[in-house]
Amino acid sequence: MEQKTLDPAVQAAVDQYKALEEKLAHFLSISSLLEWDQKVTAPKKGRPIFAKAIGTFRTEEFKLSVSDEMGELLNTLSTPEVYANLDEITQAQIRERKEEYSRSKKIPADMYRDYVVLTARANDAWEEARETNNFSIFEPFLEKIVDYNRKVAGIFGYEHHPYDALLHQYEPGLSVAVLDPLFAKLRESSVALLERIKQSGSKPNVGIFEQSYDVEQQKKFNQYLLPLIGFDMNAGRLDETVHPFAQPMNTGDVRITTRYLKDNVRSAVFGTIHEAGHGIYEQNIDPRLEGTALSTGASFGIHESQSRFLENMVGRSEAFWHHFYPTLQQHFPEQLGQVSLTEFYRAINSVQPTMIRVEADELTYNLHIMIRYEIEKALIGGEIEVKDLPEIWNQKMQDYLGITPATDTEGVLQDVHWSFGGFGYFPSYSLGNLYAAQLLSTIVREKPDFYDQIQAGNFAGVQQWLKENIHRHGKLYTPEQLIKNVTGEDLKADYLVNYLEDKYSRIYNL
Amino acid sequence: MEQKTLDPAVQAAVDQYKALEEKLAHFLSISSLLEWDQKVTAPKKGRPIFAKAIGTFRTEEFKLSVSDEMGELLNTLSTPEVYANLDEITQAQIRERKEEYSRSKKIPADMYRDYVVLTARANDAWEEARETNNFSIFEPFLEKIVDYNRKVAGIFGYEHHPYDALLHQYEPGLSVAVLDPLFAKLRESSVALLERIKQSGSKPNVGIFEQSYDVEQQKKFNQYLLPLIGFDMNAGRLDETVHPFAQPMNTGDVRITTRYLKDNVRSAVFGTIHEAGHGIYEQNIDPRLEGTALSTGASFGIHESQSRFLENMVGRSEAFWHHFYPTLQQHFPEQLGQVSLTEFYRAINSVQPTMIRVEADELTYNLHIMIRYEIEKALIGGEIEVKDLPEIWNQKMQDYLGITPATDTEGVLQDVHWSFGGFGYFPSYSLGNLYAAQLLSTIVREKPDFYDQIQAGNFAGVQQWLKENIHRHGKLYTPEQLIKNVTGEDLKADYLVNYLEDKYSRIYNL
Repeated sequence: MEQKTLDPAVQAAVDQYKALEEKLAHFLSISSLLEWDQKVTAPKKGRPIFAKAIGTFRTEEFKLSVSDEMGELLNTLSTPEVYANLDEITQAQIRERKEEYSRSKKIPADMYRDYVVLTARANDAWEEARETNNFSIFEPFLEKIVDYNRKVAGIFGYEHHPYDALLHQYEPGLSVAVLDPLFAKLRESSVALLERIKQSGSKPNVGIFEQSYDVEQQKKFNQYLLPLIGFDMNAGRLDETVHPFAQPMNTGDVRITTRYLKDNVRSAVFGTIHEAGHGIYEQNIDPRLEGTALSTGASFGIHESQSRFLENMVGRSEAFWHHFYPTLQQHFPEQLGQVSLTEFYRAINSVQPTMIRVEADELTYNLHIMIRYEIEKALIGGEIEVKDLPEIWNQKMQDYLGITPATDTEGVLQDVHWSFGGFGYFPSYSLGNLYAAQLLSTIVREKPDFYDQIQAGNFAGVQQWLKENIHRHGKLYTPEQLIKNVTGEDLKADYLVNYLEDKYSRIYNL
Repeated sequence: MEQKTLDPAVQAAVDQYKALEEKLAHFLSISSLLEWDQKVTAPKKGRPIFAKAIGTFRTEEFKLSVSDEMGELLNTLSTPEVYANLDEITQAQIRERKEEYSRSKKIPADMYRDYVVLTARANDAWEEARETNNFSIFEPFLEKIVDYNRKVAGIFGYEHHPYDALLHQYEPGLSVAVLDPLFAKLRESSVALLERIKQSGSKPNVGIFEQSYDVEQQKKFNQYLLPLIGFDMNAGRLDETVHPFAQPMNTGDVRITTRYLKDNVRSAVFGTIHEAGHGIYEQNIDPRLEGTALSTGASFGIHESQSRFLENMVGRSEAFWHHFYPTLQQHFPEQLGQVSLTEFYRAINSVQPTMIRVEADELTYNLHIMIRYEIEKALIGGEIEVKDLPEIWNQKMQDYLGITPATDTEGVLQDVHWSFGGFGYFPSYSLGNLYAAQLLSTIVREKPDFYDQIQAGNFAGVQQWLKENIHRHGKLYTPEQLIKNVTGEDLKADYLVNYLEDKYSRIYNL
C-alpha cells in the first residue's frame, strides 16, 4: 500500500494517535502477561495480593483507552476526508478503536462498576450451584446478568435483534439474520447425520483409551509434536493448567497450556493441537502490526477457526496419524502397540452424544452450541425467562442429541460463560468450525496435495498458506472481509455440512 | 504505635500521599514480575519485543514517582510540625521517598538518558572484552561510567568522601569513614587467618564433589529442603536460571532460582539456601507494610545478611548437616554413601583462594570484596585511573589472596557490576557477612540452644526470631537503627572476625 503525503497537522495527529496506540498495545501485552502469570505460575498466597496491583494497572489502561486525548484524535482522524487519505493499517486501527471507544463510553461508570461486582459474586454462586446441583442459587444472579445485557444491547444499539449488539463484541458485523439460517442448516443436517450414525450399528473401539497412559510419556509426545506441526518453540512455550488456553504477549511470545490426564491420552494431544492452532495464528501476524491493536486475531470466530482447523481438519485426519501414529505407539507400546492405525483413527473420531460440551465430538459439538445460541437469543429477546432454563435446556438436549441430563450440574449449569456475562460468545465456537471447513475447501482446491503433505509430515506448505491468507493479516480486515478475500464467498454452512457428511459416512460406512 | 488525630487538611494530604504510594507499590510489583518473567520464562524471540513494553511501563512508573503531585505532597508532609504528628509507617515512607525523589530530580534528564545508552553499550563491550580477554575494549566505556558516577556523587552531595554519596544508594547512612576501619580489621585478620590455614597442611577432601551428581536428584533434594528451612512454598517458587536470584512480587509471592550443575552438587544446595534467605525475609515482612515502599528489605547489606546467615551460619554448620546429611546421602548413595559427616562438613568449608569471587569460600570471599571496595573508592576519589586497573587488581589479588590472575578475564573483567555502573554495590556483600555474624552472636546469646534446634531440624524458633527482629520490619528502620535495636550496638567487625577465627581454627586444627 502506497504511503500518501499528509497535511502536516493531520500527520501530527496520526503520529500522536499511533504513539497512544503503541502505549496501549504495550499495556495490553503486560496485562496479558499478568493474566498468564496468575493462571500458570503465581503461588497461591500471592494471587489475591497481586490482584490489587492488576486492578490498579487495568484502571490506568482503561483510563488511557477512554481518555479525552483518544476521543479528540479519533474525532479528527475519522473525518471522512482525513480518513480516506490514511494508509490501510491506520484506517483499520481507527475502525477497531472507534468501536471499542464508543462502547466503553456508552456504559455509565457506576452501572459498569455494579456489574463487575455482580459478576464476581455470580461466579461464586455459579460454582456453588454447580457443586450442589441447585440452579436456584445461580438463578437470581443470572436474572440480573441477563437484565444488564439486555440494557447494554439497548445502549449499544442494533438494527434488528438486540442479541446482534452482543454478538458484535465477539464477531464484528455478525447478526442473528446471518446466523439463523447458517445454524438452522447445520443443526438439521447434524441431527439427521447423528441419527444415521446411531442406526448404523458400527461402533469404533474407544476402549483403547480406557487404559493408563504415563503422564511423563504424554509430555514427551506433546513436546515432540508441537514444533513439528508449526508452533515455534522459540516464540512460545507449553505449560500445564487444568483448563487449557492460549495467551499471546506478542508475536515472539505466545504461551499455550494443556492438561495431562492419566486415563485420557486424547485430552492432552488434542488440547495441545487445538491451542497450537491459536498460538501459530498469533506467532505469524505481520510484525508491521506489532504495537497496534491489530496484532491479534480477526475475531473470536476466526481465531477458533484456526484452532479447530488444526485440531480437527488436520489433527483428526487419517493422513496426520498415518505420519504420527508410529511415534505415538513408540511412546505407549503397551497401550497402543497392538492397535491398528485404522482402529485408532476410528476411535479418535467416534461419535457419541454426551451431556458435557467440552467432551463432545466434532459432530455433536455444534448441537451443544445451538442449544446455547437459541437460549441466549430468546433470553436477550425477552421471549423466555431464566427460571425456565433447566427445563428448556433438557428439552433441547433431548430434541437434538437424544439424551436428557439427569442433573442441572451436567445440564444448564455446566458452562462458566453466563456467570461472567459472556452472552454472544458461544456462537464463536461453531463459527470457528464453519470457517474452518470453508477454508479447508479452499485450501484443498488450491493445494490438491494438502493431505499428502500432511501424511508426509510436511506442515510447512500448509502453515505458509494459512500465514499468507489468514495469520499475517491479524485484525486488519473484518472477519467478513477476510473470509471473502480468502475463499471468494461469504460464510456458508454447506462446507461444514458436507465435510461432516463425507467424513462420518466413510468412518461409519453409511 | 498510637494513631493521632490529624488536622483534616493534613489528613487529606496523607490519604492522597498513601494512595499515590500504593499505586507506586503496585507498579513496582508489576515491574518486578516483568523482570522475573524475562529472566525465567519468556521465550527468546519475545524478549526484545517485550522489552519495549517494559520500557513504556517503566517510563510511566518513573513519571509517577517524580510527579509534581508527589513533590507537593512530600513538601507538605515533611514540614517538621506536620511530620512529627504522623505515625511511624508514614514517617518512614516519607523518609525513603524523599531520598529517592530528590536523587531522581537532581540528575538532569538528558544526562540520565545518555547514561542509560552508555551502560547498555558498556554491557556489550564488557561481554566482548571478557570473552576475548581484552580489557582495552571495555576501558573507554568504564572511563565514562566512572566520570558519570563522580559527577553524580557531586550532584547528590556528600560530607567527606564522594564515594559516600554512591554508597548511600545501597546502604542508607553508610560512609567510607564507617567502612574503612571495619573493612581494614576484617581484611587484616582474614589475610592472617588465610596464611595460617595455608601453613596448617590440613586439607579437606574436596574430591568428594568431583563426581557426577544426577540433576533430577539434586532438584528433588532442593525441593525437599526448601520448605523445611522456612521458605513457604505457597508464597513462592523455585525455578532454574544460570545466575541464581531472588525476586519478590509481594509477601505472598517471592520467587527464587538456583542452578544445577552435574559436576557440582554444592552449587545448587548453597545457592538455594542463600536465595531462600533472601526469600524468607520478603515473605515475613509485616502485611501492614504491603502497598508501601517499605515492604522490602532494609538495605542491600541487611538483605545480604539474611541470605548469608542462612547459607553460612546455618547452612554450612555442622548442626545443619547433622540433621540433613543422611537425606543427602540417600539422594546420592554412590557419591556420598561412604563419606562421613565430618569429612563432608570439612569439605563444604574448605578454604582455597580462587580467582573468581562467586566461587570463593566464606573466608576469602571478603578479600575479593576488599579489592573491589578499595578500587572503587580510589576511582571515585580520583586517586587512580581506569587504565591502571588490571595491574592494580592483580597486585591486590597477590597481596590479599596470594594468587595472581593469568588473564584479565579471570581478573578485573570477571564481574558485571561496573558495566551497569553499580559503584557502591560491592560493599553490601561483606556488610551482609558482618551483619550476619553480629546477629549470630545476639541470637546465640538470646537462644543458647540455637544450634541444638538446628541439629534437631527445628527451624521454627530461629525463623521466628529473625521474623520478630528483622524480617517483619521491612524498611521501617534504617539499617543502622535496625542493627542497633536488635544487637544493642553499632556494627562491629569483631563478630565476623571471631566467628571466622573460631570456625576455621576448629576445622583446620589451628
